[in-house]
Amino acid sequence: MKSTKLLQKLIIPATTKIVLLILDGLGGLPLEPGGKTELETAHTPNLDRLAEQSALGLTQPAGPGITVGSGPGHLAIFGYDPVEYEIGRGALEALGVDFELGPDDVAARGNFCSVDENSIITDRRAGRVPSAKARELVELLNTIKVDGIEFFVEHVKEHRFAFVMRGEGLNDALSDTDPLRVEAPILKVRAMKHEAEKAARAANQFIEQARCLLADKHPANMITLRGFAKLPTLPTFQELYKLNAAAIAINGMYRGVARLAGMEVLDASGDTIADEFAKLEECWHDFDFFYLHVKKTDTFGEAGDFEGKVRAIEEVDALMPRLIALKPDVVIVTGDHSSPAVLKSHSWHPVPMLMYANHVRADGIPEFGERACARGSLGILPAKHILPIALANAGRISKYGA
Amino acid sequence: MKSTKLLQKLIIPATTKIVLLILDGLGGLPLEPGGKTELETAHTPNLDRLAEQSALGLTQPAGPGITVGSGPGHLAIFGYDPVEYEIGRGALEALGVDFELGPDDVAARGNFCSVDENSIITDRRAGRVPSAKARELVELLNTIKVDGIEFFVEHVKEHRFAFVMRGEGLNDALSDTDPLRVEAPILKVRAMKHEAEKAARAANQFIEQARCLLADKHPANMITLRGFAKLPTLPTFQELYKLNAAAIAINGMYRGVARLAGMEVLDASGDTIADEFAKLEECWHDFDFFYLHVKKTDTFGEAGDFEGKVRAIEEVDALMPRLIALKPDVVIVTGDHSSPAVLKSHSWHPVPMLMYANHVRADGIPEFGERACARGSLGILPAKHILPIALANAGRISKYGA
Repeated sequence: MKSTKLLQKLIIPATTKIVLLILDGLGGLPLEPGGKTELETAHTPNLDRLAEQSALGLTQPAGPGITVGSGPGHLAIFGYDPVEYEIGRGALEALGVDFELGPDDVAARGNFCSVDENSIITDRRAGRVPSAKARELVELLNTIKVDGIEFFVEHVKEHRFAFVMRGEGLNDALSDTDPLRVEAPILKVRAMKHEAEKAARAANQFIEQARCLLADKHPANMITLRGFAKLPTLPTFQELYKLNAAAIAINGMYRGVARLAGMEVLDASGDTIADEFAKLEECWHDFDFFYLHVKKTDTFGEAGDFEGKVRAIEEVDALMPRLIALKPDVVIVTGDHSSPAVLKSHSWHPVPMLMYANHVRADGIPEFGERACARGSLGILPAKHILPIALANAGRISKYGA
Repeated sequence: MKSTKLLQKLIIPATTKIVLLILDGLGGLPLEPGGKTELETAHTPNLDRLAEQSALGLTQPAGPGITVGSGPGHLAIFGYDPVEYEIGRGALEALGVDFELGPDDVAARGNFCSVDENSIITDRRAGRVPSAKARELVELLNTIKVDGIEFFVEHVKEHRFAFVMRGEGLNDALSDTDPLRVEAPILKVRAMKHEAEKAARAANQFIEQARCLLADKHPANMITLRGFAKLPTLPTFQELYKLNAAAIAINGMYRGVARLAGMEVLDASGDTIADEFAKLEECWHDFDFFYLHVKKTDTFGEAGDFEGKVRAIEEVDALMPRLIALKPDVVIVTGDHSSPAVLKSHSWHPVPMLMYANHVRADGIPEFGERACARGSLGILPAKHILPIALANAGRISKYGA
């Protein structure tokens, strides 16, 4: 992290404001060879005008060919090396339900599952038990007590829940209990190193009590836990960049990752994109860095709905004049990864990015799209390089050397 | 190698097929400022059509400004950091004559030379002794015996030969015997560290016996040895990427480097480029990664024969429909380095590269050439990034994080 250290040393305070607008899964592909991507198809007069005054590029979240989840994708755009700072499965699950994970909590992803009389798994998802039923069972699990340890179980969806242990000296080097196949017994939690023995004991005690409580609840008559993880400890935006940062995001995971970076997570009054932009306007004078997250682009991309993704992009475009009217000093518009509708999934393709600022060296390319960004002066860049360039454009980095 | 470790962790098996076509020394320069390079001059309708459906870029084998030999150039395209994995001179020489170097063998580059009665070098190349004569002398050297050590001497060309020692506990930290100038005495092999003393002793015993055997063979009355080296140990394509890889290459060194990466080295029925393509067709169902090597482009480049290089490129272009007819999932066409005819040597100039795949984000640039590739969306990229992007396009990398 030599380069981050240099950056941190050079940071100076300023009164400028930076807006980072992340359209989740923004990057796309054409439906047919030679066709246009979702972003290229969308009618985006406001983003196009902004692009003309911006430097354009394509970002790689975690290296060439690597497809990332939204966790590492966001860490990278926030300036953290996503390979160095890994967010474990369990921690992500807890963040996803907006659980305020403490630095010493150990989280895991939980599943309700079905077992037979010999404790052999017959269904790893308990027949995708309906959410209403699962919520009742979660209540039951929340009654479990083990001396010196607090447990939190939060329902996610159907058979899925987030599991959190809180207590002194809990280490997350723990093995999964899920054998990842049926017709196999559920495994004990094992400490992968000596320091994790206390945590392993606590988890196993919880599981044994869960077994008794759920015995007559077939198909959801047992649980599995996997991906035990603490939150990584990140230096915050305040520590690194002297930035007073706010996050405007609806979904839990994005809010959690922002909190990890030391941002204050704001609640919009509703769950539309317009509500998020309204929150930005409302809090404009309270912060100097705003991370604004739009989920819909990814949702449509993953669903394979090309047209839906196009409309989501157009919805954002129509709101852009409200953002511009605030006169931000720096605006970044990009995605945390690509989610081409044609692939119905996240993908490795570099992500379009525009950086607008008063003294940015604008490319003069009057279009925001994959091929336009490929011609941009920022070239293909690691996503973790976005923030330093934004800080420079915001007058927040002093000179190195004389 | 953090990124390689991440990649290895994310690899998933697939049934897709990747073809890596390396035109040795592909990159070029115009004969006159403002003119066209060899590749730009060549009539390449098939490569141009493929380029239109591909992502284009320019690759740097080992970093900006670095001219590489074919060894590091190939390692980089195979995904290995060519600075981290160095193939020593001696090992390359042995690979070049298709010698199957074992993991414990120590190889060196050998020269016949001329010495006077005081053992002072008078000609470092023994008057470039004719190959026929040199081959006789090599036979003689192959009669040398030292207890517990096997020696192999393989003629290369004129005064050059490859020297290999095989035996238990041989270390390659050995100094050269070649003083690299005339009117100097031949040096003793010295162990550069304690563990190499056995190998130094063996090499010096060999050299003393060679001195006796060659005493009356002026001008080739002595030998020098330099560049002692074992093969580096590389994790194989199978270990790293779960790829069942084949190499189709005529020349020894390329075959050796491919073997080092764990590829199965195939024999074409003849030594033309068409024979290599025929072998590809023949073995299409037996492997999922094919490295196809074309030597001629480099040979003409190094000879300063611009027209010859143009014709070699056109010869490959005419064969491309046979490759495309196999319906590979991913096709990469590039070179291991540049060899502009105008320079008559390898050069540091970035190398044109196209990557074709079903879901590649095609640039739509209908031309394969240096300037076309400079406009490509892959930008200038380290050659070691080619393979991860190819693997992603082949559906062989799972998502990192959630």
